[in-house]
Amino acid sequence: MSGQYIEDLIKIIAKFPSLGTRSARRIVLYLLKKKETQIPQLIKALQDVYDNIKVCEICGNYDTQTPCSICSSTTRENNLLCVVQDISDLWALERGGLYKGKYHILGGVLSAIEGVTPEDLNMEKLIQRIDTEEITEIILALPATVDGQITMHYISSMLKDKGIKVSTLSQGIPVGGELDYMDDGTIKLALDLRKQI
Amino acid sequence: MSGQYIEDLIKIIAKFPSLGTRSARRIVLYLLKKKETQIPQLIKALQDVYDNIKVCEICGNYDTQTPCSICSSTTRENNLLCVVQDISDLWALERGGLYKGKYHILGGVLSAIEGVTPEDLNMEKLIQRIDTEEITEIILALPATVDGQITMHYISSMLKDKGIKVSTLSQGIPVGGELDYMDDGTIKLALDLRKQI
Repeated sequence: MSGQYIEDLIKIIAKFPSLGTRSARRIVLYLLKKKETQIPQLIKALQDVYDNIKVCEICGNYDTQTPCSICSSTTRENNLLCVVQDISDLWALERGGLYKGKYHILGGVLSAIEGVTPEDLNMEKLIQRIDTEEITEIILALPATVDGQITMHYISSMLKDKGIKVSTLSQGIPVGGELDYMDDGTIKLALDLRKQI
Repeated sequence: MSGQYIEDLIKIIAKFPSLGTRSARRIVLYLLKKKETQIPQLIKALQDVYDNIKVCEICGNYDTQTPCSICSSTTRENNLLCVVQDISDLWALERGGLYKGKYHILGGVLSAIEGVTPEDLNMEKLIQRIDTEEITEIILALPATVDGQITMHYISSMLKDKGIKVSTLSQGIPVGGELDYMDDGTIKLALDLRKQI
């Protein structure tokens, strides 16, 4: 093949999530086709991210400053805290622009199979924030999986004596969802949680 | 969201072939998770490719040298030339390691719809090579599409008076292919080209 350099780059890109060797090869060829513009542009963007992005010391978000722009915002509600699994979930909520409180990123969920314990998650900082910040409600926006449910249960039992309102996202048929395409679990849940109109 | 730098990087990665914004976001989060090791490693690999990879002046292959290691090889057959659409096809043939001749990369195929004419392809250089090198057979390993067929026809008619053997790859059912999964065109072709055993 054409030199070790191309092979090395393919190997690195093939490890990206949802990619493999075949798609990595296509990406490297795409980069090489307009080498003079594409590669320096990508290197610059990577370098900018490397030099400027920090992890927020309060919530765990990525930003150019710490505390991040959400944590240091004066216009967001200080008493509402949304606990999410990962930064991608924070991004998803921010894209909607409907949530005006603050966030706390756990960095995962408890998992017996993968051996994730409370110590592996950003849990201690959460308790600390609840004790020091003026939080009145916690929204547990964790995934609707068994591990997510267990983590929500763990957190809510941990907060039982703190006098804080704890809520979770509603579950059921998504907007635009067709019954035909829903799994049995979702249909059962949507029936159990049905609402009178 | 968390600063313009992350957004910029997501935008660049989202343009990669077969990726979109959602997968680009996942890749950027993956890179940020182990930022200190992953990003410098990727930047270095990109810089190495940028600094070292050249386009071979003879066949159009990518290599650290020009003429490339295939063109300048003394052990490969000089009289056999395989014409391929793109470098990915050269890579595919090289992975098998079964072909021992040289290559010529066209950079595409003729296309009336996309307006690709012979001038847009690496065609002139091909004629020049046939006239100057000691080539006795040309294998047209172009895609089995209408455009690929037209390009093969164009090249073979161009070479009619040169006294060179022109061949194409055989067509039919791939190894391990099940009839049930084949399209009608392939089945018709495989029937038409059936071989007596």
